[in-house]
Amino acid sequence: MIPKFASKDATRICELRNRNTRVSQASASKTNTGNFFEDFRLGQKIQHATPRTVTLGDVAVYNGLFGPRFAVQSSDVFAAKIGYPRAPIDDLLVFHIVFGKTVPDVSLNAVANLGYADCRFLKAVYPGDTLSAASEVIGLKENSNKKTGIVYVRSRGANQNGEIVLDYARWVMVRKRDESAPAPAEKVPELPRSVEPSQLGAACPPIDAAAYDNALAGSPHRFGDYKKGEKIDHSFGITVENAEHMIATRLYQNTARIHFDHFTESKGRFGHRLIYGGHAISLARALSFNGLGNAFHVAAINGGRHVAPLFAGLTVFAWSEVLATADVPGRKDIGALRLRTVATKDRPCRDFPYKDGDEYDPAVILDLDYWVLMPR
Amino acid sequence: MIPKFASKDATRICELRNRNTRVSQASASKTNTGNFFEDFRLGQKIQHATPRTVTLGDVAVYNGLFGPRFAVQSSDVFAAKIGYPRAPIDDLLVFHIVFGKTVPDVSLNAVANLGYADCRFLKAVYPGDTLSAASEVIGLKENSNKKTGIVYVRSRGANQNGEIVLDYARWVMVRKRDESAPAPAEKVPELPRSVEPSQLGAACPPIDAAAYDNALAGSPHRFGDYKKGEKIDHSFGITVENAEHMIATRLYQNTARIHFDHFTESKGRFGHRLIYGGHAISLARALSFNGLGNAFHVAAINGGRHVAPLFAGLTVFAWSEVLATADVPGRKDIGALRLRTVATKDRPCRDFPYKDGDEYDPAVILDLDYWVLMPR
Amino acid sequence: MIPKFASKDATRICELRNRNTRVSQASASKTNTGNFFEDFRLGQKIQHATPRTVTLGDVAVYNGLFGPRFAVQSSDVFAAKIGYPRAPIDDLLVFHIVFGKTVPDVSLNAVANLGYADCRFLKAVYPGDTLSAASEVIGLKENSNKKTGIVYVRSRGANQNGEIVLDYARWVMVRKRDESAPAPAEKVPELPRSVEPSQLGAACPPIDAAAYDNALAGSPHRFGDYKKGEKIDHSFGITVENAEHMIATRLYQNTARIHFDHFTESKGRFGHRLIYGGHAISLARALSFNGLGNAFHVAAINGGRHVAPLFAGLTVFAWSEVLATADVPGRKDIGALRLRTVATKDRPCRDFPYKDGDEYDPAVILDLDYWVLMPR
Repeated sequence: MIPKFASKDATRICELRNRNTRVSQASASKTNTGNFFEDFRLGQKIQHATPRTVTLGDVAVYNGLFGPRFAVQSSDVFAAKIGYPRAPIDDLLVFHIVFGKTVPDVSLNAVANLGYADCRFLKAVYPGDTLSAASEVIGLKENSNKKTGIVYVRSRGANQNGEIVLDYARWVMVRKRDESAPAPAEKVPELPRSVEPSQLGAACPPIDAAAYDNALAGSPHRFGDYKKGEKIDHSFGITVENAEHMIATRLYQNTARIHFDHFTESKGRFGHRLIYGGHAISLARALSFNGLGNAFHVAAINGGRHVAPLFAGLTVFAWSEVLATADVPGRKDIGALRLRTVATKDRPCRDFPYKDGDEYDPAVILDLDYWVLMPR
Repeated sequence: MIPKFASKDATRICELRNRNTRVSQASASKTNTGNFFEDFRLGQKIQHATPRTVTLGDVAVYNGLFGPRFAVQSSDVFAAKIGYPRAPIDDLLVFHIVFGKTVPDVSLNAVANLGYADCRFLKAVYPGDTLSAASEVIGLKENSNKKTGIVYVRSRGANQNGEIVLDYARWVMVRKRDESAPAPAEKVPELPRSVEPSQLGAACPPIDAAAYDNALAGSPHRFGDYKKGEKIDHSFGITVENAEHMIATRLYQNTARIHFDHFTESKGRFGHRLIYGGHAISLARALSFNGLGNAFHVAAINGGRHVAPLFAGLTVFAWSEVLATADVPGRKDIGALRLRTVATKDRPCRDFPYKDGDEYDPAVILDLDYWVLMPR
Repeated sequence: MIPKFASKDATRICELRNRNTRVSQASASKTNTGNFFEDFRLGQKIQHATPRTVTLGDVAVYNGLFGPRFAVQSSDVFAAKIGYPRAPIDDLLVFHIVFGKTVPDVSLNAVANLGYADCRFLKAVYPGDTLSAASEVIGLKENSNKKTGIVYVRSRGANQNGEIVLDYARWVMVRKRDESAPAPAEKVPELPRSVEPSQLGAACPPIDAAAYDNALAGSPHRFGDYKKGEKIDHSFGITVENAEHMIATRLYQNTARIHFDHFTESKGRFGHRLIYGGHAISLARALSFNGLGNAFHVAAINGGRHVAPLFAGLTVFAWSEVLATADVPGRKDIGALRLRTVATKDRPCRDFPYKDGDEYDPAVILDLDYWVLMPR
């Protein structure tokens, strides 16, 4: 049954009847104003819009925007030689596409994207696959100022066969439409601080490590060459332009206005278009090739903080620390490195800027805690 | 026979002999200076150059530039479910590619692009199709100042099988090379003010409306939910950058210098590179998803005016009015909405800016009158 | 055997043992700092990293960046009609992709890219082909200031079948890490001043010249219409934006920092990000369509000088001189034109700016000497 909605009441009734409900209906208007904090319900399930067939065209645009050099995603021949059917789609590109579909329902009225947790890449995605996304509200917490609240969602991306390719939790500070609207019962979900090694690698086929050619990959360093505590300065900086971040964010069909509308943003909080936080993640990942060239797969993201905003004209640098090395139970082909990758703006990372006490160095824009796989 | 040209006289003779004539030959120079008003002849047929195989790469670049969210073009699965063989190429991308091919012959020496009429999308285009374009001069009218004249052309885009995919009329004010050149007999063609509903839908296969999923499409509003006179503010604004409009316009192989050459334009009429008018059309269409998300197919364009120029740094907003709703004879799956979509620069459209009396609001850059199809 | 490296000594031993050696190892760091002049050895063979499957996505991004209109690369139908299996990848796109792979090993510490010679396109490349690159050091010459030296390399791009698609020589001025490091024995290779006509056309299948349609190609001028000494002003200018050149250069996976890092470059020699020299080559080639529209294949590059740097905001113009016309032995379908294409910044080329005496006109940024093929 395809729901037709005339009013918010009808919406709530239909929610109970039909899980594929689009929840946001401005009253008489046909325009989506997005959900405000009081529109969310614990346990609510949202089927997001805009299924997307991911193509080699998307891969090329992403390559032009970030220039990643990981050989597995770059070459069908290299990928096939080590065990993939062909070059898989870049893990972060999959993430951004799925994330983009959640924005109209979850974060149109967000004040801030607070964090991620328990993000697992579960199945490789290939050109021609079609991705769709759905979310469940797993927590709500109104803020004491009664103007905003935190919404916790678990979001999943699925392919055309219904297989889950990506699963993550995110929490966002969302505005209230009406400060007097009653606060919901508070629920802050328990989320794992990190993904367990045993949960890693579902999206990574068995790798023929002997066939994995370091010279072609661009790095002689494999799993066993990295030690806990080791820090790597990724050295290069990339300056971001407005056209670039807007092309990237639109590529993901993420249309949050704060990234695009200079007329409005010039008078707003930042004075500039805010760059989508995922843009810094992809830049940092591309920069990390220098020193982590054989980290061919992002298997999971444990957490991420967009510590400070990024704007066009700034130059992104990055460094990484190996937080842990781990075997993946049942796998002899690859090992897992837990990394903290820190990205900065206008601040080379020779000295690994991070925190002064409890406060982040003001140059830090991203603190990403994630697992990568490397051939043994 | 492949024509070889030494002079303009030979050119005119060959025109009579061979319809595949390239009409513009600068005298001894091998460079194309384009046609001036006095070079056009009523009834002249022009086979434009540069056939183009449209690919998934083009789709991705277009997606990065405009971020359209219409599910039919976004997902092969969604499209196939409702009756397409796969996701068709975005209608406006087809338009821009065909239009781009006419530029070297029709509008290199244009002063202004005056209008469009009777534009019909006649056959769906898919990745791998090859498009070419041809035009016929259907009207000429020299201006009283003897410095310019209006050229009316009917242009058609065809695919590799010779099937016409697009057919439209356009008129352009073109400079004269030589003011003393005699004025041609005046002919102003009669062009329909709008395309009839019976002419709509040739490019749209029978749609399985029951299989059309509103939640995945991103809008609960279908044909029957729209009323004549209804106005929709599409809300968001998109700021345009020079790199973006140049990448877009080159993607269409439209090389009109006014869009690309800041050195020259900085001293010219506007002081800036003029953004191709079609860029605003595509931005407005992408913005219109918000409120018209199920308007999955642009079936025809009745008319369009580029009311004011657009330059980089400006922010485009848009609103639409439903001018009419219509049945499409013989079709029970879809209905047609006639829309006026107005785009503005640096002017949100909460109050639907349009005209003060007969004059356009100075913020208006585009007034587009077109038919879209929606599932019933 | 997959080499593992702990130190530069081990590296040199492995070089003797294993030709697939990555030569650059910063001591304890995992980051690639690139090779300095004293790291190169005459006869050294380098297998570059990052094999790349070239796709229709790459073609589209390249089209958006440069807007080339040559029909052979634009249309599968046009290409197939004249003798190709389908539209081949643009010759210069192949060049940039191969070149990009040599950068991390050859020119990360370059002061200047001095020249090219003997560049031959040996096999057509098609979407789906995977390119990799390898180089051999064929010359070394330390400069008298002992701070830099010239490294001469011959680089080859190969496809997935090991067939060489591109072969060229390049020389670069590279910094020394340590001025006191001893100078190597000097060797300046003899390189041909130009590629012989008999060496042209390996990448061009037999062309059905009668089936080659001038009108669709966009130019009535074929091989026989060009004369030695003839000059052509390509007329239009294209202004370059930072986002564009960065997207292009990353598309080629060329990550040389000087193109991307405004934070560092703003304090450096130029004050701005230096645009990759190949960007001007591709712009000039795209501009050259106007006057050389049937020069459908770049068969060889005899030499190229990046005479002056190019930065964003500048407008590129170009002109060409026909240096020679030549038969290609054994070929009746095509002829070869030897061209000098000169590109300028902020300088229209109506008067063919080139040199004042021995000095280049200060507006000249590129002097490219190359062979193109044209149908007879």
